[in-house]
Amino acid sequence: MQPPGLIVAPLTPFTSDLTLNEAALQRQIDYVVRDCGATMVVAAGVETQEYTYLSLEQRKALVRRTIEFVDGRVPVMVGISHPSVKTAIELANDAEKLGATVVQLLAPLRPFAGQPTQSDLVAYFEAIGRETRLPIALYLNPGPGADVSIVDSIVLAKLPCVQLIKESSRDLARVSRLIVEIDRAGHAQYFTTMQMLLATLQLGGSGATMPPPASEIARHIIDAFMAKDIDRAAELQLQFALFPSKWMHRGLAPTMKAAMNLIGIPVGEPYPPYAPLSRDEMTGMAAVLKTTVLSARLSVTAAA
Amino acid sequence: MQPPGLIVAPLTPFTSDLTLNEAALQRQIDYVVRDCGATMVVAAGVETQEYTYLSLEQRKALVRRTIEFVDGRVPVMVGISHPSVKTAIELANDAEKLGATVVQLLAPLRPFAGQPTQSDLVAYFEAIGRETRLPIALYLNPGPGADVSIVDSIVLAKLPCVQLIKESSRDLARVSRLIVEIDRAGHAQYFTTMQMLLATLQLGGSGATMPPPASEIARHIIDAFMAKDIDRAAELQLQFALFPSKWMHRGLAPTMKAAMNLIGIPVGEPYPPYAPLSRDEMTGMAAVLKTTVLSARLSVTAAA
Amino acid sequence: MQPPGLIVAPLTPFTSDLTLNEAALQRQIDYVVRDCGATMVVAAGVETQEYTYLSLEQRKALVRRTIEFVDGRVPVMVGISHPSVKTAIELANDAEKLGATVVQLLAPLRPFAGQPTQSDLVAYFEAIGRETRLPIALYLNPGPGADVSIVDSIVLAKLPCVQLIKESSRDLARVSRLIVEIDRAGHAQYFTTMQMLLATLQLGGSGATMPPPASEIARHIIDAFMAKDIDRAAELQLQFALFPSKWMHRGLAPTMKAAMNLIGIPVGEPYPPYAPLSRDEMTGMAAVLKTTVLSARLSVTAAA
Amino acid sequence: MQPPGLIVAPLTPFTSDLTLNEAALQRQIDYVVRDCGATMVVAAGVETQEYTYLSLEQRKALVRRTIEFVDGRVPVMVGISHPSVKTAIELANDAEKLGATVVQLLAPLRPFAGQPTQSDLVAYFEAIGRETRLPIALYLNPGPGADVSIVDSIVLAKLPCVQLIKESSRDLARVSRLIVEIDRAGHAQYFTTMQMLLATLQLGGSGATMPPPASEIARHIIDAFMAKDIDRAAELQLQFALFPSKWMHRGLAPTMKAAMNLIGIPVGEPYPPYAPLSRDEMTGMAAVLKTTVLSARLSVTAAA
Repeated sequence: MQPPGLIVAPLTPFTSDLTLNEAALQRQIDYVVRDCGATMVVAAGVETQEYTYLSLEQRKALVRRTIEFVDGRVPVMVGISHPSVKTAIELANDAEKLGATVVQLLAPLRPFAGQPTQSDLVAYFEAIGRETRLPIALYLNPGPGADVSIVDSIVLAKLPCVQLIKESSRDLARVSRLIVEIDRAGHAQYFTTMQMLLATLQLGGSGATMPPPASEIARHIIDAFMAKDIDRAAELQLQFALFPSKWMHRGLAPTMKAAMNLIGIPVGEPYPPYAPLSRDEMTGMAAVLKTTVLSARLSVTAAA
Repeated sequence: MQPPGLIVAPLTPFTSDLTLNEAALQRQIDYVVRDCGATMVVAAGVETQEYTYLSLEQRKALVRRTIEFVDGRVPVMVGISHPSVKTAIELANDAEKLGATVVQLLAPLRPFAGQPTQSDLVAYFEAIGRETRLPIALYLNPGPGADVSIVDSIVLAKLPCVQLIKESSRDLARVSRLIVEIDRAGHAQYFTTMQMLLATLQLGGSGATMPPPASEIARHIIDAFMAKDIDRAAELQLQFALFPSKWMHRGLAPTMKAAMNLIGIPVGEPYPPYAPLSRDEMTGMAAVLKTTVLSARLSVTAAA
Repeated sequence: MQPPGLIVAPLTPFTSDLTLNEAALQRQIDYVVRDCGATMVVAAGVETQEYTYLSLEQRKALVRRTIEFVDGRVPVMVGISHPSVKTAIELANDAEKLGATVVQLLAPLRPFAGQPTQSDLVAYFEAIGRETRLPIALYLNPGPGADVSIVDSIVLAKLPCVQLIKESSRDLARVSRLIVEIDRAGHAQYFTTMQMLLATLQLGGSGATMPPPASEIARHIIDAFMAKDIDRAAELQLQFALFPSKWMHRGLAPTMKAAMNLIGIPVGEPYPPYAPLSRDEMTGMAAVLKTTVLSARLSVTAAA
Repeated sequence: MQPPGLIVAPLTPFTSDLTLNEAALQRQIDYVVRDCGATMVVAAGVETQEYTYLSLEQRKALVRRTIEFVDGRVPVMVGISHPSVKTAIELANDAEKLGATVVQLLAPLRPFAGQPTQSDLVAYFEAIGRETRLPIALYLNPGPGADVSIVDSIVLAKLPCVQLIKESSRDLARVSRLIVEIDRAGHAQYFTTMQMLLATLQLGGSGATMPPPASEIARHIIDAFMAKDIDRAAELQLQFALFPSKWMHRGLAPTMKAAMNLIGIPVGEPYPPYAPLSRDEMTGMAAVLKTTVLSARLSVTAAA
């Protein structure tokens, strides 16, 4: 059995004129790889990475820089989700040339209302799978993407081109079943979210994907789990009970950017029109983070 | 710390003329208490117990018989959810006289559309709380009941009359936060569902409530957890991955009745118009149950 | 062709000790029949009538009084929706003895989660239909009741026992289709809501059901429509644009009770824990009602 | 008062290699302007136009060709909805240069889950409004876009840059109120959908937007309404009761493309992976269209 995966999606730092802050990205990626022990890094793959605001050229540049800054230390998964199938294929081809290991693709909304059928979804993934030699990570995130049933998720997982799954729901009944019918059945590796991490590992799932600095807490959970110190793993998992839930009405990107700024690895503010957390919200978050494994970084910052 | 709670809600066995099959109820309660090690039994509290089909007199008789058959071996929680507040109070008063320990009360739907506000909910629970000396178990089950936000759930949990919570969602992000802000904060004991059991115990929740025979699997999970054999607990938790998920389109009551019938503790068929599982569905379920701790009972039945 | 139907559901006036205020009910029914020209009166049929708060005996008494006070001037439709099928049948039998013309029955929620299937629904309506000689009005109101698809609604409408339909959605695409496939096809009469009244009449539907005093505005709409004064009908229909929408976060029962109190036909306050409209909200509503056909009654009251 | 608006969104015809079929677009636009009497044409504005599949260059080319083929006969509204704000502004600037009259902009989803707040929405529309001299049509379409409350819709309509609104819901209670508080209040012109057309006109809304050939039926409805032949208008409105509802599980783009192909103005098939209607579905649709104002075109085709 492989060790559990910790797939980390760096936040996208913007300069004041809303272009990519490369220095901030590089520092962040070093933190993600070195301090969080990411086993894979995601480039422009999830909405919390605010890639949807970028032009196609900016998005490609973000992917390129991410791969450069990771610099071969771990594999990179490149997001290719795009309403245009041809653009998704173009992004997959680019990813392949740049040395990506996997491409991540959202189960797409039907543009003209209603959910896509099983055969729509199969045709979509097969069409894109034919155009790239890279394995596909099926990305399940109802809202930005389709709401895929348990049965359809299993069918997609059995496609040869689909080798990973990233599940964004926190429904443990759904996830338990999919871990058994997909991951333990050998069809694809199943990854969930920070709140589901310990439960996922115990049920036999492959790990979780998340942005920093949640990934640093996750690293401690995984290490405790591997060391069979389950009490410690459970205590650590509780660090995801209040954080990020208490700030989620502001959105995950503003919340995680605030946390990174608090621990001294600044990544700037959310892309407009979304607002950064207020001073009061930051103070409240600092108080919660002080009770987590992030507290050491926090004190250094506060002292500075 | 108290040992984890296993609150069991017996299914309601009907005779062919749709009245309570008392003998089947008694056998089932003996199984629940003796073999599943229920720490509390629920009388007419959750919809899977099909109590909504009963007339008020039939419902009271079901409560009375349940308490009689439990016969003081463990405490009994009596459901008092009813659209009429006065009837709910009448049921609470009856429960008190019959020796119940707790009453269970659904966060109510607003009858004329829309969700109740926080002050509606507080006024409702306080009004009923004033009329009974028994503590209340707040029952959160969106659909039959209101969809109560995290913030409102915490406010309700702080009411002195609310001392337990039964959460029907399987959203682990929600549940993690509520365990910390309600159970570990000392406001009320938090109970979840079979699919959430191990995760709940590890995060510090109080246990779970469920019908038999899921409760027998749950007993093994709790025992392994208490014995600190977490690998075994996790392996047992996986027995809830396919069961009951694969039959949930038929509903939880028909699914659990089928499982009870398969393990030789017959509880009859669902109340019409809901249909029992087909012969093929029963065969499929038997194959899945053979891989669980219920397999021993299953073979006996098959042999008979 | 029959003239359009105006089915009116009187609000339930409670005394200060939360029993039925019979005098207030009688006055209101006189208003509904005489001034609104109701073509049918509903007894304890829709949730806005707050019947769900009543004990079974109180509910039966409300039905009996409603029929007495209508006193044969128009037919009465009696609500028999109840989670217990046997109680629903008991209510239907009572309704028949008391001289009701139709019984109204909610497409039921499945008590143990998920939507009922087409065959569940057909079995349910057929089972109840067998037990009463009265025709059934199928009541479609997702939330308190099931969310019935277009296809399943058509199947139910074709049952011989179903002769009317009360649709609570305001989805004109759905309603247009159902009017054609159900009402114009001769399977059942289709009734909608106040906001849909003129559109329903123009498309060939049978009318609408609603509480007073919306019913007085509706009477004017129907009269203008019958007189082929469509400009007037459209102008009147606009009186439902702000009223009741601006107060719907408080619920339809509190909103309509406030309006009745404002026009001098007092019906008391909502059943607790739901609160009556505040003084400011009442003032705002009075200002809106002054622009409607209810203004005459309003000035009289204001003067008093 | 202005005559009612009929804003038509031509379907996007693709060649077999999935590029724009310009000849088919031109024929269609001639039909839309000449035969349907469109008062405005939409370029790449609504999802049914399948513009989300196009690369940015292909999308710009579609806009340019649409404006060329309309050739000044009526004003053109250009869709600028794009996850990237900067790209939306770029599209607005292009639209201005090409001679567009209005730009259409979807109330955006929050990329990282949850609905945008009122201040997020205001900031978003103001930011884009500052960058173009063209008025904005606010596009309300929950799913692809945010689910904007009644109150927030009114606030957005009062922004000076917002001068039209395209509402995709078919909720007549919502639309009635918004017509009064937005259109009749003078803040913006309110446009709805085909199923809502007559109701919208009667309540004082500004018209509707839709694809062909629904637009030809709509033209007849508007003409009858203007001629005060309301019986005829209502009879015509019923032509939208079965069409397109019966095929909507296939999606609006496949359904409308099938209808265009049936009436002899071919526009090809849906963009993959979405499938065209089957032969049986086409036959069923032809039977329904035979009962509409489109029947004349249909027979010619059938004969051909």
